[in-house]
Amino acid sequence: MIIIGEKINGAIPSVAKAIAAKDADFIRNLAKAQSDAGSAFIDVCASVENSIELETIKWLIDLVQEVTDTPIAIDSPNVRICAEAMKFCRKPGLINSVSMEGDKIEVVFPLIADSKWECVALLCDDTGIPQDSEKRLEVFAGIMKKAKEYNIDPSRLHIDPLVQMLCTSEDGINTVVEVIKEIKKQYPNIHVTGGASNISYNLPVRKLVNQAFLVLAINSGMDSGIINPLNRDMMGMIYATEALLGQDEYCMEYIGAYREDKFGPQKLA
Amino acid sequence: MIIIGEKINGAIPSVAKAIAAKDADFIRNLAKAQSDAGSAFIDVCASVENSIELETIKWLIDLVQEVTDTPIAIDSPNVRICAEAMKFCRKPGLINSVSMEGDKIEVVFPLIADSKWECVALLCDDTGIPQDSEKRLEVFAGIMKKAKEYNIDPSRLHIDPLVQMLCTSEDGINTVVEVIKEIKKQYPNIHVTGGASNISYNLPVRKLVNQAFLVLAINSGMDSGIINPLNRDMMGMIYATEALLGQDEYCMEYIGAYREDKFGPQKLA
Repeated sequence: MIIIGEKINGAIPSVAKAIAAKDADFIRNLAKAQSDAGSAFIDVCASVENSIELETIKWLIDLVQEVTDTPIAIDSPNVRICAEAMKFCRKPGLINSVSMEGDKIEVVFPLIADSKWECVALLCDDTGIPQDSEKRLEVFAGIMKKAKEYNIDPSRLHIDPLVQMLCTSEDGINTVVEVIKEIKKQYPNIHVTGGASNISYNLPVRKLVNQAFLVLAINSGMDSGIINPLNRDMMGMIYATEALLGQDEYCMEYIGAYREDKFGPQKLA
Repeated sequence: MIIIGEKINGAIPSVAKAIAAKDADFIRNLAKAQSDAGSAFIDVCASVENSIELETIKWLIDLVQEVTDTPIAIDSPNVRICAEAMKFCRKPGLINSVSMEGDKIEVVFPLIADSKWECVALLCDDTGIPQDSEKRLEVFAGIMKKAKEYNIDPSRLHIDPLVQMLCTSEDGINTVVEVIKEIKKQYPNIHVTGGASNISYNLPVRKLVNQAFLVLAINSGMDSGIINPLNRDMMGMIYATEALLGQDEYCMEYIGAYREDKFGPQKLA
């Protein structure tokens, strides 16, 4: 599982506070902890007003790079900010995200065409999120056409099928599972990603729904996740699922991660 | 999910102690609590020496029937004890279990042929537990041939594919998943059952493995489980999984179970 550590996000109140107060240590600690917990990318999202987004994201990226070599996932709804922020990164990372909305792909794909940068692509377009799997796969086909045009290998793409809240769904996650399976069938090397908490919106005991969702999503082919690697139960559940799915012979990874204190009752320092 | 409440089992030290001390209240309370938590059957297993097994199981069954109408699952490795104990039950329950080992089926199937009794059937025979799915399905075919002979509808059978510990497996649970899917394909009305804790034997933080296993097993078709209904996280995970799989429109069952205090932070009485 490719973990995209989600904690440095101005939408989280404690992070917003740290950004406003220029609390560099808070950000550095979050970066270090997520890196130590096994993140493949550290997501950086300013969530501030437009006029200061670029300078804020630069400040955040610089702080992350002071404490870890883990690549950055540049996270902004504005792809032009993503494009500018690429310059602050010492090594290729991940753009989070493009979609078939507006000219997002036209802005980003040329920039990452001849590079090792990866990119999250959401299955939505100017009409929003298609409700049935057929239409979502049409959006996916559009993205892949563009990727081919710019010679971006599927292995550099993380497709986010956009999981919606379960409480208003009539078929559970069946549509999403169908979409994930078809995507992986068409492009075995592509990554499928997503957040793991939208699903439980408005429901009680959200962590149970989030955890069960993650197990089913991994089973259907999700191999990348925008998640909180400091959530020990979630991380343990990922390792357990990989072992159950036969991706971890004799549970060596599961046992190793436990010994490294990545999940289970916290060991005393 | 058909819950077979597993707590009244002499293999559990506190229950063994209660049996030895003839602590009737302890047994009654366990029966009542498991019934309240949503058990479809209350499993009763004496786990005592042969000479006192039948009288012990009678004592247990009588106590359970004092406090609940929930049917009994008679649990003994000795099918002759199961056959005798059927007489103590006020209503049809479940025999736990037969297999293709020895004459087990020949003893039990005639007794339940013209009844509403249900039966757990394990996929093993005199040679033990077959390691590959093909051989397990051969054992299954043998069981179904016998069931047909005695006119036992598949809907009265709970097939236990016998999940073995993950730590010694090279393919995770792929073999078991394959077997479950094929069984449900052949007989859509049959039940697939199993315990949810063998899987995690010898591994750290067993509850994570047990929970992830249950999610994957339900996803593949398991619809019955010999589990502890007083384990709130496990119960919540079952409700969450059913909702995610589209078996619980708008999460009404999930929300209802939460309101009835079946999972989540325990409400104060």
